[in-house]
Amino acid sequence: MASQQFEPPSGTRDFLAGDLRVREHVFAAIRDVFERYGFEPLQTPAFERLETLTGKYGDEGDKLIFKILRRGEHEATGEADLALRYDMTVPLARVVAAYGSQLPAPYKRYVVGPVWRADRPGRGRFREFAQCDVDVVNSESPLADAEIVCAVTDALTAAGVTNFSVLVNSRRALTGLLQVYGIPAAVGGGVLITLDKLDKLAPPEVVRELVETRSLDPATAEGLVADLTAPDAAERLRKVLPDAEEGREGLAEVDRLIEYAAPVVGAERIAFTPSLVRGLDYYTGFIFEVVAAGTPGSIAGGGRYDHLIQSLGGPDKPACGGSLGVERIIGLLSDEAITAPRLDIAITVIDQDAAADAMDFAARLRRAGLRTEVYLGSSRKLARQLRWAADRHARYALIYGPQDRAAGLVTVRDMDSGDQQQVPPDQLTARLTGPR
Amino acid sequence: MASQQFEPPSGTRDFLAGDLRVREHVFAAIRDVFERYGFEPLQTPAFERLETLTGKYGDEGDKLIFKILRRGEHEATGEADLALRYDMTVPLARVVAAYGSQLPAPYKRYVVGPVWRADRPGRGRFREFAQCDVDVVNSESPLADAEIVCAVTDALTAAGVTNFSVLVNSRRALTGLLQVYGIPAAVGGGVLITLDKLDKLAPPEVVRELVETRSLDPATAEGLVADLTAPDAAERLRKVLPDAEEGREGLAEVDRLIEYAAPVVGAERIAFTPSLVRGLDYYTGFIFEVVAAGTPGSIAGGGRYDHLIQSLGGPDKPACGGSLGVERIIGLLSDEAITAPRLDIAITVIDQDAAADAMDFAARLRRAGLRTEVYLGSSRKLARQLRWAADRHARYALIYGPQDRAAGLVTVRDMDSGDQQQVPPDQLTARLTGPR
Repeated sequence: MASQQFEPPSGTRDFLAGDLRVREHVFAAIRDVFERYGFEPLQTPAFERLETLTGKYGDEGDKLIFKILRRGEHEATGEADLALRYDMTVPLARVVAAYGSQLPAPYKRYVVGPVWRADRPGRGRFREFAQCDVDVVNSESPLADAEIVCAVTDALTAAGVTNFSVLVNSRRALTGLLQVYGIPAAVGGGVLITLDKLDKLAPPEVVRELVETRSLDPATAEGLVADLTAPDAAERLRKVLPDAEEGREGLAEVDRLIEYAAPVVGAERIAFTPSLVRGLDYYTGFIFEVVAAGTPGSIAGGGRYDHLIQSLGGPDKPACGGSLGVERIIGLLSDEAITAPRLDIAITVIDQDAAADAMDFAARLRRAGLRTEVYLGSSRKLARQLRWAADRHARYALIYGPQDRAAGLVTVRDMDSGDQQQVPPDQLTARLTGPR
Repeated sequence: MASQQFEPPSGTRDFLAGDLRVREHVFAAIRDVFERYGFEPLQTPAFERLETLTGKYGDEGDKLIFKILRRGEHEATGEADLALRYDMTVPLARVVAAYGSQLPAPYKRYVVGPVWRADRPGRGRFREFAQCDVDVVNSESPLADAEIVCAVTDALTAAGVTNFSVLVNSRRALTGLLQVYGIPAAVGGGVLITLDKLDKLAPPEVVRELVETRSLDPATAEGLVADLTAPDAAERLRKVLPDAEEGREGLAEVDRLIEYAAPVVGAERIAFTPSLVRGLDYYTGFIFEVVAAGTPGSIAGGGRYDHLIQSLGGPDKPACGGSLGVERIIGLLSDEAITAPRLDIAITVIDQDAAADAMDFAARLRRAGLRTEVYLGSSRKLARQLRWAADRHARYALIYGPQDRAAGLVTVRDMDSGDQQQVPPDQLTARLTGPR
């Protein structure tokens, strides 16, 4: 890495060919799955009007918005009028509001693209990073919920993530859980926030927070945490949740989702997880998270959020969706070899007289779909040019020196074996595209 | 279009599926060509440090840079520290400086992505628009020049632009031209700026500007313009340019480029064009533009710019490159039908009992690569659901009502002919992926 002056801005990255190819491979695999489900792509501008974004992400989120200074005579005011996209959901809400009846109903859309957050950069945390969302707007069908879970898990599989599990719960099941454990509605939200820490904190710490911060009596807190962290937590909760109407309905919602999604996800990989909360309080129905073996946190998640689009300034449309943590997924894959396409042909240029022929050979080979490069350096030495061909990992090198030209034949060198053959120029394409 | 509140910011666009597919089709075709030439993709952040961009685009350009306000406690200063990418060349210069020896030599890179300029929005002029550049850094070879012209024209062809011509000239030929017409070097730059208007202004207007603004004597101005606008302009200049050394060398440079590029471009489509100037004074060698029949201005252009990377803050590396006017190219194509992939299968869901089967059929068909959607609406009427299948342009609809289930057969309806057949569920995939 060079001096700081030439590094990309803090929290951003330059992607050279190798890294970029891994990313594009993952994005293409994901897009391909979403297309097969009939989701449509959407692309909105990198920036939105500032007022479209402010107030949508809470006080902490608002501080992380990159704001764009007004221009021209207004620049001196130091005011902003635009801001970089912070997520893909606010633009979706704006698009649903703007294009309403022009959109299919339901509107199934996916998006893969960068968002920007002025977070403190750190390990695996960037200020410019890709987000990948898939949503169904304007359907209340439980099949839409299942489609989201199936599309997300199919996309993970296509991207190369194999060892994962899907945790499913429902906001209504959580409401029922509060009821059957006798937790007053007034402290319910806080209790759920604390329970959301069960994947990070030890159970006694969660019990203490429930007692000290959320004012639960110790027996309730201990019973609740014991049930949720037991190996048979799902069975225990299946027994008690039906005591409350919301619990019963939430459980039915979870079971229906699992029934519909199991053929795609695999029944052994999807399970009711009564301790799954997901922090965001805009969920209204099912919620899910995908966890990968050996990776902390989740690599995908989502749920049903029937009033979020309205609260973001759009119309009141039922909706559900999922988000893939594509940066984490790419991180999981980076050790695997997603190799660059190998250079097929490297054409040497020994003297000026061979230059036009080199371009002609290149044109023909490229037309036949072969990845072909012509030597563009200044050396006229064959050995130097063959080293270039090797550096570029070429499969074959072509040599067309004075002797070759006199014979009317091109020398084709197999760069792996070193074997050389002479081939008439008009048979080059057939020879090089055929079996080796 | 809805109320202004929900429109994208001035000068930007939302791309819904139809438009986005046309764009992605063009970008993919262009990328594919560049990959076959062995160019490597590069992606840099959307924003750069402000000081990386300021002073690089002239006073007028500087005013068009979108600047990003500092954050946190610094926001109140009204100062900017980052700015949105204005072109792809300054980031290239930074990358060449930052990664030097990690890059292949020569470094052949292409890039397709958005840039942002705070221009006054207008017909076909946007504040967020795609740029597509292809460059060779660190080669002085005339073959590199030819590769740029070939890659650009191949990319245009692949994108679907068929009727175009390539105009070629050389900065040295222009220097020679000034010399043989006895134009003092002191006014040469201004004279070229005026001559650059020959594609927009009538010849007498150009003559008047040469006399009044550039202080040429009327006879010189008239002779120069008469020669450059004559039907045989190239022949006339071929005769006089060799009188100056720069003119002779420039002409040789042009002829060599045409010789090397003709096999790809087609000899009849590439021609020495002595009046081609291109406004940007950073070119040092050949220059070219691609014009399309019936379209004002150019759809691609470029040249050799041996010291630009240094002047942009990078190391002093010889380089040449080209840029495709992708927004104009997409505009040329928008009338053509680049149709969305048709939905293969629409699965109706008549009753709750068919829902899990519908999801199962969908999973199998998608696994076989078929674009498949499940009905996610609330109607239980078959006629309504078949209308949905027709609206989605589905090829087939599946029906699995109580009678079908009792018979253990799925009804497959051909949405074009209305023909219906009953198929065992386990033969669905074979039947629907096979010949119609």
